[in-house]
Formats: sequence, structure tokens, C-alpha cells
Amino acid sequence: MTTSSGHTTAILASKVKGTAVYNDQGDKIGTVEDIVLDKQSNQIMFAALGFGGLLGIGEKYYPVPWSLLDFNEDKGGYVVPLDKDRLQNAPAYDLKDLTKHDGSLGDIRAETYDYYSVSRDWH
Amino acid sequence: MTTSSGHTTAILASKVKGTAVYNDQGDKIGTVEDIVLDKQSNQIMFAALGFGGLLGIGEKYYPVPWSLLDFNEDKGGYVVPLDKDRLQNAPAYDLKDLTKHDGSLGDIRAETYDYYSVSRDWH
Repeated sequence: MTTSSGHTTAILASKVKGTAVYNDQGDKIGTVEDIVLDKQSNQIMFAALGFGGLLGIGEKYYPVPWSLLDFNEDKGGYVVPLDKDRLQNAPAYDLKDLTKHDGSLGDIRAETYDYYSVSRDWH
Repeated sequence: MTTSSGHTTAILASKVKGTAVYNDQGDKIGTVEDIVLDKQSNQIMFAALGFGGLLGIGEKYYPVPWSLLDFNEDKGGYVVPLDKDRLQNAPAYDLKDLTKHDGSLGDIRAETYDYYSVSRDWH
């Protein structure tokens, strides 16, 4: 996103992995496990969040639109504007399903963006 | 990029760092040092390539539109459709300049996409 003045801010992908994620009540709910990049366009497909211990889900990964993650300097982590219920009931997948090459990934992305009510900005 | 059938392929950001980069003559020219992500949109701003030893440039990073990098299974690395001269004369920056928060990054991205004749797909 570029502001009218052309301002934009960026972060290195290597800095993101392992960063803590908080919900909108300020509770730490998990970490960014990885970021899934479209191979052919300049699109970030989604962040893959892990809620591991806290929610007791284990190995499942939660795809979340990257644009929903707001870095909070005070917390040193990302805040997502979602409560626990919304996240706990969100679409979750095995990591291998998030980089599959069989066309199902497009469906996963569409389902994810719809779930979080984020408009589809790919083409 | 999604094909008409909805097919798309993806890769984990953590798998990309350190991957070799080849030019269109098949010569290894460097590595992907990192990927620069827009903090607020779902856009990959660019890949940051390092040509270190081979071109003798040292610490400079070359921003290249991610969509130009084509993964080649046989080589186990990315091929960019550019010759050595094109890359050697490309815009290059210190790594810290590629994550600045002062608005200059938008200019760097614009300059980079123009240099490589890649259409601007952000908004």
C-alpha cells in the first residue's frame, strides 16, 4: 500500500519468521511460522500462523492475509484485529497443503480471504 | 498469478533465502539474499539479490521484481531473463536503504521496475 505521498514501509522476509502474534485483546496467541509467496506474481499469498501450544492445535497452520498483520513496536510483534474465537474457528491446514502445486492453493487463498472479510486483491 | 483454471503455485519465504540465481546464459551470478515485503499490502516489493564475489561489488543489494525470478528445477535455482551487463548496471543499494521508512522506498521500487521494464502492479 502506498500513501498519496508515495510513502511505503517494508520489512525483510527473514525478519518475520518466528515473530509473535497477538489478538486484539493483547493476548499472545502464536507466531508467524512462515510466509507463502506466489511464485509468479508479486503477491504475498498469506502469512502462515502457528498457534501451537496455546490453542492446543499442534501442527496446523492458519493462513491469514498478510495485510491483516499490524506490527506493534511496543509489543515487538504483530497484532491481528481478531478475537480468539474468530481465530480458533479459522481455516487451518497442514504446512504441505499450503505450498501444493495442484490448484488447490487458489481455493485455500479464496476461502481464507473470505473468512477474514479481506477483499481479493490478486488478478 | 492465477491461471484461468485457478491454478497457482507458491513457495515458503524461508525456502528462498540463499537460493542461487542464474542469468539467461546459464551462469550462476549470485543468490537471493532476502525478500522485501510491503508491510501493509499483500505485495512483495522485490527480491534483494547479492552478486557478491562474482561481480566484485561486495555489500550492495540489487532489488529485482520477484516476478522476474523463474525457478528452474534442473538448476535448483532461479533464472532471471537478463544478461550480465543488464544486471551489472542495475540499481543497487545498501541493505538498510531497502527497508527505510522515509518514503524513499517507493522511489526505489518504481526505479527498479522501470529499469527491468516490469509493469507496476501495486496501487
